[in-house]
Amino acid sequence: MTRKELFEQIKKKGSFLCVGLDTDTEKLPAHLLDEEDPVFAFNKQIIDSTQAYCVAYKLNTAFYEADGVSGWISLEKTANYLHLQYPDHFTIADAKRGDIGNTSAMYARAFFANMDFDSITVAPYMGEDSVRPFLTHPDKWVILLALTSNKGAADFQMLQTGDAKLFETVLKTSSQWGTADSLMYVVGATKAGMLADIRKIIPDHFLLVPGVGAQGGSLEDAAKNGMNKSCGLLVNASRSIIYASSDVDFAHRAKDEAEKMQQEMSALLNKYL
Amino acid sequence: MTRKELFEQIKKKGSFLCVGLDTDTEKLPAHLLDEEDPVFAFNKQIIDSTQAYCVAYKLNTAFYEADGVSGWISLEKTANYLHLQYPDHFTIADAKRGDIGNTSAMYARAFFANMDFDSITVAPYMGEDSVRPFLTHPDKWVILLALTSNKGAADFQMLQTGDAKLFETVLKTSSQWGTADSLMYVVGATKAGMLADIRKIIPDHFLLVPGVGAQGGSLEDAAKNGMNKSCGLLVNASRSIIYASSDVDFAHRAKDEAEKMQQEMSALLNKYL
Repeated sequence: MTRKELFEQIKKKGSFLCVGLDTDTEKLPAHLLDEEDPVFAFNKQIIDSTQAYCVAYKLNTAFYEADGVSGWISLEKTANYLHLQYPDHFTIADAKRGDIGNTSAMYARAFFANMDFDSITVAPYMGEDSVRPFLTHPDKWVILLALTSNKGAADFQMLQTGDAKLFETVLKTSSQWGTADSLMYVVGATKAGMLADIRKIIPDHFLLVPGVGAQGGSLEDAAKNGMNKSCGLLVNASRSIIYASSDVDFAHRAKDEAEKMQQEMSALLNKYL
Repeated sequence: MTRKELFEQIKKKGSFLCVGLDTDTEKLPAHLLDEEDPVFAFNKQIIDSTQAYCVAYKLNTAFYEADGVSGWISLEKTANYLHLQYPDHFTIADAKRGDIGNTSAMYARAFFANMDFDSITVAPYMGEDSVRPFLTHPDKWVILLALTSNKGAADFQMLQTGDAKLFETVLKTSSQWGTADSLMYVVGATKAGMLADIRKIIPDHFLLVPGVGAQGGSLEDAAKNGMNKSCGLLVNASRSIIYASSDVDFAHRAKDEAEKMQQEMSALLNKYL
């Protein structure tokens, strides 16, 4: 998916919502446990009920790997379902990968060539040659970690490196490796106050913003400080949507939560775009 | 496995070799392609023929994920085979994971609780709370990226952060999160000249040293500068061993390569330990 196509979807839906499918087998509604693949059954209902209100889905690979082979099957089935049923939605493999070149190329094969995700999250620590194998796939995206939403972001990302903090140096350096048409960045909503400064470094790139919802970040702050002329934001919510209810009404409640965010986002798009 | 047990194995074998199972389906000997699970058949023969000369096996998860569900099955079968047949060998999930706490806990479930690996490689960028969930499993290890063997290591790891380079700050800060009995570090053999300085920061920790062999690092330099009183080194070789031959003699040639390294290592243990 191109940046232009993504922006078209955002305008059409009045939403820059990404729904995070951090599907935990221990949190599934009891009535789904008899299904052949309870995780996929859950994801399918969440997707069907929220797709009108979001432009992207993010699959957190850890939650699937935790179930071993059956988890990997659920991951592939969900990715496949999204591509077949909702090809206009942007898909994110939230995998936080990154390794030496020949190994990153294998991860690119797994997530781009085989599962056809539009994008993958990548950790920057190993530098350019660990990221570049993901950038050679046309219309696929690297979403590089810059400033994350967790407490540990302070340990290294905020260190002073010359005249800039490490995460700022990561933004400056890595933005030379690709363009705003192939690179996005993770910037946590818990750090939304810093988005205005980040926009001075990367005015055009899309940002994937986790941390709204369960982690406490503000949507208004993210939009006010982070929006650019192509919106430039994908705000992710996982737990606050997919676990809005643990009962038979889970999909309906997820729809309500997604719709509530979409309405707030629609107003923010009118206000700041 | 405890640090003491690992050192016992090193002394018993006269080896600190780790064999890297970066098993690429496109490089398998042709005669294995008729097997039900060619990747596992390859791994099994490599393991059986090299186990006398090494103390550890490292499974690079990217190569298994690149094959999708069947790859994940091969990964689990290989891990299971190692635990049943060779429980004295240290096992490494070379997965380069790391995410917010609840997500890292899921990766720990995947690699420690389910597949019973002794250790996992973790990227430090997201800080303490992304690493800690891996440190709560008794006798399991985090192998944290410090200074990697690739060219891109220069992009961020070598940046000056206050009075130390980023990788040195990573070593200093993270060594407070666990002990030399739960934490190891990745330090590339291509940077072996820097091992003496690294040993001033972390005298006791084991180091996983990739980059000997195909990547060109020197074993002598790694031993001379990096060995401590418990050896403190696991030197990994992948391609130079497992792809020594692509023919029917692949396992025998892998044995030869592993034995050659073991003999060199035995001499180095006598010289520097």
